[in-house]
Amino acid sequence: MGNSNNIRSDVGLNCIQNQKLPVLDGGFVRLVDVMGDDSSIVQAARVSYGEGTKKVSEDRGLIRYLMRHRHTTPFEMCEIKLHVRVPMDCWRQWIRHRTANVNEYSTRYSIAIDAAKTTKPDEWRVQATTNRQGSDGEIDAVQGAHLSERESALHASCREVYAERITAGIAREQARKDLPLSTYTEAYWKIDLHNLLHFLELRMNPLAQHEIRQYANVIGREIVSKWVPLTWEAFLDYRLNAITFSEPELRLLSHIYANSRKDAVNVLLEMGWLKKNENEWKPNREALEFNDKLMRLGVTSLWA
Amino acid sequence: MGNSNNIRSDVGLNCIQNQKLPVLDGGFVRLVDVMGDDSSIVQAARVSYGEGTKKVSEDRGLIRYLMRHRHTTPFEMCEIKLHVRVPMDCWRQWIRHRTANVNEYSTRYSIAIDAAKTTKPDEWRVQATTNRQGSDGEIDAVQGAHLSERESALHASCREVYAERITAGIAREQARKDLPLSTYTEAYWKIDLHNLLHFLELRMNPLAQHEIRQYANVIGREIVSKWVPLTWEAFLDYRLNAITFSEPELRLLSHIYANSRKDAVNVLLEMGWLKKNENEWKPNREALEFNDKLMRLGVTSLWA
Amino acid sequence: MGNSNNIRSDVGLNCIQNQKLPVLDGGFVRLVDVMGDDSSIVQAARVSYGEGTKKVSEDRGLIRYLMRHRHTTPFEMCEIKLHVRVPMDCWRQWIRHRTANVNEYSTRYSIAIDAAKTTKPDEWRVQATTNRQGSDGEIDAVQGAHLSERESALHASCREVYAERITAGIAREQARKDLPLSTYTEAYWKIDLHNLLHFLELRMNPLAQHEIRQYANVIGREIVSKWVPLTWEAFLDYRLNAITFSEPELRLLSHIYANSRKDAVNVLLEMGWLKKNENEWKPNREALEFNDKLMRLGVTSLWA
Amino acid sequence: MGNSNNIRSDVGLNCIQNQKLPVLDGGFVRLVDVMGDDSSIVQAARVSYGEGTKKVSEDRGLIRYLMRHRHTTPFEMCEIKLHVRVPMDCWRQWIRHRTANVNEYSTRYSIAIDAAKTTKPDEWRVQATTNRQGSDGEIDAVQGAHLSERESALHASCREVYAERITAGIAREQARKDLPLSTYTEAYWKIDLHNLLHFLELRMNPLAQHEIRQYANVIGREIVSKWVPLTWEAFLDYRLNAITFSEPELRLLSHIYANSRKDAVNVLLEMGWLKKNENEWKPNREALEFNDKLMRLGVTSLWA
Repeated sequence: MGNSNNIRSDVGLNCIQNQKLPVLDGGFVRLVDVMGDDSSIVQAARVSYGEGTKKVSEDRGLIRYLMRHRHTTPFEMCEIKLHVRVPMDCWRQWIRHRTANVNEYSTRYSIAIDAAKTTKPDEWRVQATTNRQGSDGEIDAVQGAHLSERESALHASCREVYAERITAGIAREQARKDLPLSTYTEAYWKIDLHNLLHFLELRMNPLAQHEIRQYANVIGREIVSKWVPLTWEAFLDYRLNAITFSEPELRLLSHIYANSRKDAVNVLLEMGWLKKNENEWKPNREALEFNDKLMRLGVTSLWA
Repeated sequence: MGNSNNIRSDVGLNCIQNQKLPVLDGGFVRLVDVMGDDSSIVQAARVSYGEGTKKVSEDRGLIRYLMRHRHTTPFEMCEIKLHVRVPMDCWRQWIRHRTANVNEYSTRYSIAIDAAKTTKPDEWRVQATTNRQGSDGEIDAVQGAHLSERESALHASCREVYAERITAGIAREQARKDLPLSTYTEAYWKIDLHNLLHFLELRMNPLAQHEIRQYANVIGREIVSKWVPLTWEAFLDYRLNAITFSEPELRLLSHIYANSRKDAVNVLLEMGWLKKNENEWKPNREALEFNDKLMRLGVTSLWA
Repeated sequence: MGNSNNIRSDVGLNCIQNQKLPVLDGGFVRLVDVMGDDSSIVQAARVSYGEGTKKVSEDRGLIRYLMRHRHTTPFEMCEIKLHVRVPMDCWRQWIRHRTANVNEYSTRYSIAIDAAKTTKPDEWRVQATTNRQGSDGEIDAVQGAHLSERESALHASCREVYAERITAGIAREQARKDLPLSTYTEAYWKIDLHNLLHFLELRMNPLAQHEIRQYANVIGREIVSKWVPLTWEAFLDYRLNAITFSEPELRLLSHIYANSRKDAVNVLLEMGWLKKNENEWKPNREALEFNDKLMRLGVTSLWA
Repeated sequence: MGNSNNIRSDVGLNCIQNQKLPVLDGGFVRLVDVMGDDSSIVQAARVSYGEGTKKVSEDRGLIRYLMRHRHTTPFEMCEIKLHVRVPMDCWRQWIRHRTANVNEYSTRYSIAIDAAKTTKPDEWRVQATTNRQGSDGEIDAVQGAHLSERESALHASCREVYAERITAGIAREQARKDLPLSTYTEAYWKIDLHNLLHFLELRMNPLAQHEIRQYANVIGREIVSKWVPLTWEAFLDYRLNAITFSEPELRLLSHIYANSRKDAVNVLLEMGWLKKNENEWKPNREALEFNDKLMRLGVTSLWA
């Protein structure tokens, strides 16, 4: 590729540029090009901040300061272009991030990619009950095997119908209409670093769907971490692994730090986050979320 | 709906608000809400232009001036919210318009809509040969009937597999993965008038895919035309029905006007738009496009 | 105004619509129009979440859930249009929020507004030393009076030069070039609620410049709070008054909770956030920021 | 600069990278970095179009096709970063292009740049009468000299007041408030090629203000033309030098080509574009615009 010399060896990207980093059973992420690196963020920030802080040794501190205080525009000065292969149902989530440039493989102009995301018998996930959104646990092996067989047969039928339409001379734009959502598509995806980090924060989150999380992890941990290591470190500290406490939660924390767990429980009861039916505590969803945060602080549950 | 009183009777929208205007076999467009109308565009433009032009009778002229000269920001002062039901393959094109607000029905949280776009025997379209993108003509009746039957069977299989997964307790986010692209989805879609007109210009175009064109036509001709009639008229005159001539085409037009069709042909030959093999003219794609424009002017082909 | 009937009396906006709410010495914010309210957010969210949660009594809970988990798209379903009068140097900050629609008063077409932000003797602010960005404290009265006089004279000179140029027939686009940045401008500004809350979070922050903070406060506390009261309450709890703790800070909090203030201090020293020169503690900026957060929790400083 | 090796010698950019190309009396445009070139556009387009068109010799044709048919997304795959120095009143227009990344020099953190755009005696422009927007012709020499003197004195006063405030310890964010709009500012400005071409189309237009036009010309003719020469050529042919004819104008052209100038005049009269008072023709603005277009075609005025 003409631009391969764009990427400087010292940032550790050379070894992965143009490699197809595998994701899922048939997808990939391939780094095509980057503009800028950690030093470009510093350079742009200093246009704003003026000449005050100039030492190279201060770059890390400056980047951390920018990340901490959500001074986001300097991070927009870096740009990355990826070539990805993704199941369409995953791509439907991906494309909701609007501040990006996209050229997707067109099944209007071309024959659809002959591959769909398949599911191994042990990969079927059970609907979560506590969280309407996600999935939770795996299905038993026999049923898993059955479902995988059925999936395989359905893929074959879909493909057969597609091929039959194409052979009959049907317009590709119409022939494609019954491809399964799991069919792979490809795209060039170009985005600035600030918006990429926002994408990663949402999509590396455990609540994000399994499939897109795999892509986000590869992009974050295998590409961004090498491309802009200082930014990546700051992102982990101040965003991905940070916790936000709401105003009510801060009030609860105050009581806890003042060693008044009982006061904290009273606040929970007053706010309706916690109820007591006979001898059983009934926390609401917000209380459970707070509990999870307390665990990160090594604080035991207020009511269990 | 709480906001139904938002829409003023005099703009002719009342009769359609909250009606599901049908599109395709199972889709619809429903007007939910609007902000502003033609007068809001004028109001905003006059903040920029100052107090010079104030008569109500001048509104039409001002709107036409703004449209003609691509002064686009006043059109952004109007906003519309639609509720639409669209096949997912059509939605994949729709969502590429990034400057809009979207809330789509989630098959992660909810059971997928049990309807997919079906195709009647006489609705199958043949792949265009001159235009790689689109479709052209219809298939014969027997084959059409066969394809429609096959489509129907495939839809049933897909639905069966989906239902089986749901029954087995598979997470909805995973169960949906093999739904056909023709499955209907729903969304709230909110966009400003400037960006809506851009959408309509692209999607009402005869080269746009048949399905999305049906939606664009309903939005444009049944909703926008009533909502902002002066803007709609200007849009038709200055954008949808306008023609742009490139610099080479302007040169050709000069020769034609000067009654030098021969000079025009020479320019075509020089530019390589036209070739002559033995006694047959071979126009390239750009020449054919120019020919189509000449037809709009009542000018006969330069070479046929 | 034609749209005045758009705004429903029950949301408490009627009393302020079209009123010029004063800001600074000569500016204002005027509510022109809104689309949607709290119920529109709920309506849009339920398209995504499906029919599970339908009771009106659950609206508050749903809005709080959306805010807490940064499900931002339903908030984009509300739109607001303001007419504002702002000093140009303040507007330069305002306009950096890109996801908004703007029509600004044009000094290219029209004579510039004959008013500039003036500063009373007791309004001059001293440059902050600990924070390069902001200001801190006030100047003494005599000097303040002197500076205000000088300002007044300069405004007069600028205006005189401008008037002279206009009289000489100089193009308005050129005549305006030496107007002071404090000159007032006007604009229509239209933005969706999600992006407005982002604007408010940044501009109501004590670190934002005094002038734009006044505008943000009026928009937030006098308009948004009445327009979408449930959203406003959630915004205060989960965003404006929330605190984010970084990963290192969470580690520190754990030690503090475990009553190991000494361990916390050791971590501070290890991370280089704190140094000890002879008998004096030298916290760096990040340590000071952490200290401020501890104060919110009622925890005393780790080193003071 | 670390990235200087990013730019390949064969695209002719090397000679200008990091050079400050002068604009106006004290401004400049400096190329900092690019991502991609003509070949990246082709590469991205072929992801959509599939493998049909592969020969290098077809790149030009493909780029021209994309430009002609407003297939804009492949052009978004190129990105450019500029460092510019611009008077603030010019920057106020520039920043209205929202789809760009910006880091501006902050007079909140730093002392303002000690330079303002000055005007030579022969550079003062007269307010246009036919076009409310722009300027037209120059002022006489004596008056020009007087205005330039006055400008110079005003700049000195403004600077003196600014310096006095800084010396008195006033916060920079407040001290700057009366700087003249002509004060220079600096910024890093990063934008994709599609949006840059849109900027150039608007700002290279003769109706754009003189000052910003100088910047647009330097960016277009000295940088973009070397960076993406095939795209630049297509941009000139299909956008900058193209003409759009509205539906009414197409009707007029038909009559003209059919040698029925009289019919064309009748249409003009019917549409109200032209009036005849006694023996004088009174064309409206739209008729005059049409006349200008006819001149490009070598067609003489319909009424003069």
